[in-house]
Amino acid sequence: MKIQLALDLLDINKIHEIINETIEYIDVIELGTPLIMKYGINIVNDIKNIHRNKYILADLKIADGGKKEAEIGFKAGADIITVLSHSDKNTLLYVKEASKNFNKKVMLDFLNNDFNKNNYLNLLKYEFDFYCIHTSHDSTYDGHNPLNDLKRFNKICNKNKIAVAGGINLKLIDKIIVYEPSLIIIGSHITNNDNPKIVAENIFNKINNVSK
Amino acid sequence: MKIQLALDLLDINKIHEIINETIEYIDVIELGTPLIMKYGINIVNDIKNIHRNKYILADLKIADGGKKEAEIGFKAGADIITVLSHSDKNTLLYVKEASKNFNKKVMLDFLNNDFNKNNYLNLLKYEFDFYCIHTSHDSTYDGHNPLNDLKRFNKICNKNKIAVAGGINLKLIDKIIVYEPSLIIIGSHITNNDNPKIVAENIFNKINNVSK
Repeated sequence: MKIQLALDLLDINKIHEIINETIEYIDVIELGTPLIMKYGINIVNDIKNIHRNKYILADLKIADGGKKEAEIGFKAGADIITVLSHSDKNTLLYVKEASKNFNKKVMLDFLNNDFNKNNYLNLLKYEFDFYCIHTSHDSTYDGHNPLNDLKRFNKICNKNKIAVAGGINLKLIDKIIVYEPSLIIIGSHITNNDNPKIVAENIFNKINNVSK
Repeated sequence: MKIQLALDLLDINKIHEIINETIEYIDVIELGTPLIMKYGINIVNDIKNIHRNKYILADLKIADGGKKEAEIGFKAGADIITVLSHSDKNTLLYVKEASKNFNKKVMLDFLNNDFNKNNYLNLLKYEFDFYCIHTSHDSTYDGHNPLNDLKRFNKICNKNKIAVAGGINLKLIDKIIVYEPSLIIIGSHITNNDNPKIVAENIFNKINNVSK
């Protein structure tokens, strides 16, 4: 189990600050969709050049134009890009092909696509590197979280491929780590906290106590 | 019926060139997802400042973080932004609310969401400005086009709100204009042509002969 820090803040100085404070507990730095939307893909280069020993995920949420968009991400230095699970099969295949050509990774994102065994099994056939059980940020306001879908997905997918995201905090994490997902994605619970380092450290410790 | 020119090219000079060549036939200039991904939202400002009398659509394909992402688009000067139809209801509501606050417009994009009467009727309740019947670019390689879904959607939606996109060319347009959609979105058929102006003019003439 590793921690992916999701950065959806728009203040670049603040982003650098939070990365620096939490870096020892983080394996994957996620440059969020709004961040890339605002500043463009060069932000991936910028962060990768500073943190060359960390994985950089560009949350492109590709939904079409799989070849072109995947190449934009990989050429900018992203180690992992995301594609939405509702995408056409050709989009999925083009993204997969690009990841092979660049020797980089793809995370299929189940955002806005509730667990459905047949649908999910079909998407597993593409053999992406990661599959993300993902409760949308906006729906967490209604109290939703990814736990139930994680529980069900865990039965059909190798845990080494599972990522999980959406409203994960120190309270929820105890229930998440039972399933030992490969990547636990945490955003606002770290970035909105007055002390991001303490939160990251606490989560890191919880994960590693269980991993032992 | 108006023409929306979808720009998914990544060469900025070429983009300016094509806009200038076709501008008299175009009502909406669409800055495509890969373009914004690569250069960031400032490209919306740049194009709006040059073409202040045209509508600028930023194809953000919002799927989460509705408030934050909509604001990124509207603050940059976009007249219209897009949100994916698979989004959580909160995302749709936040995007809608932002559009009211900025007095700008939203296009709901049915990308990767085939026609389903109940689902589509439910999405009409949000009263977005435009609803786009959209065959993904990647699936047009398999010969798909938006005609059948347009035909069915036309029965349940005011045509003033209907946009249509996906592999539209001079051959398909005769079948499209029968339904008099408000916006006809054309990308590669214009941008990949050796003479974008002639293609835009031909489409414009077809549309206006029928409109008379």
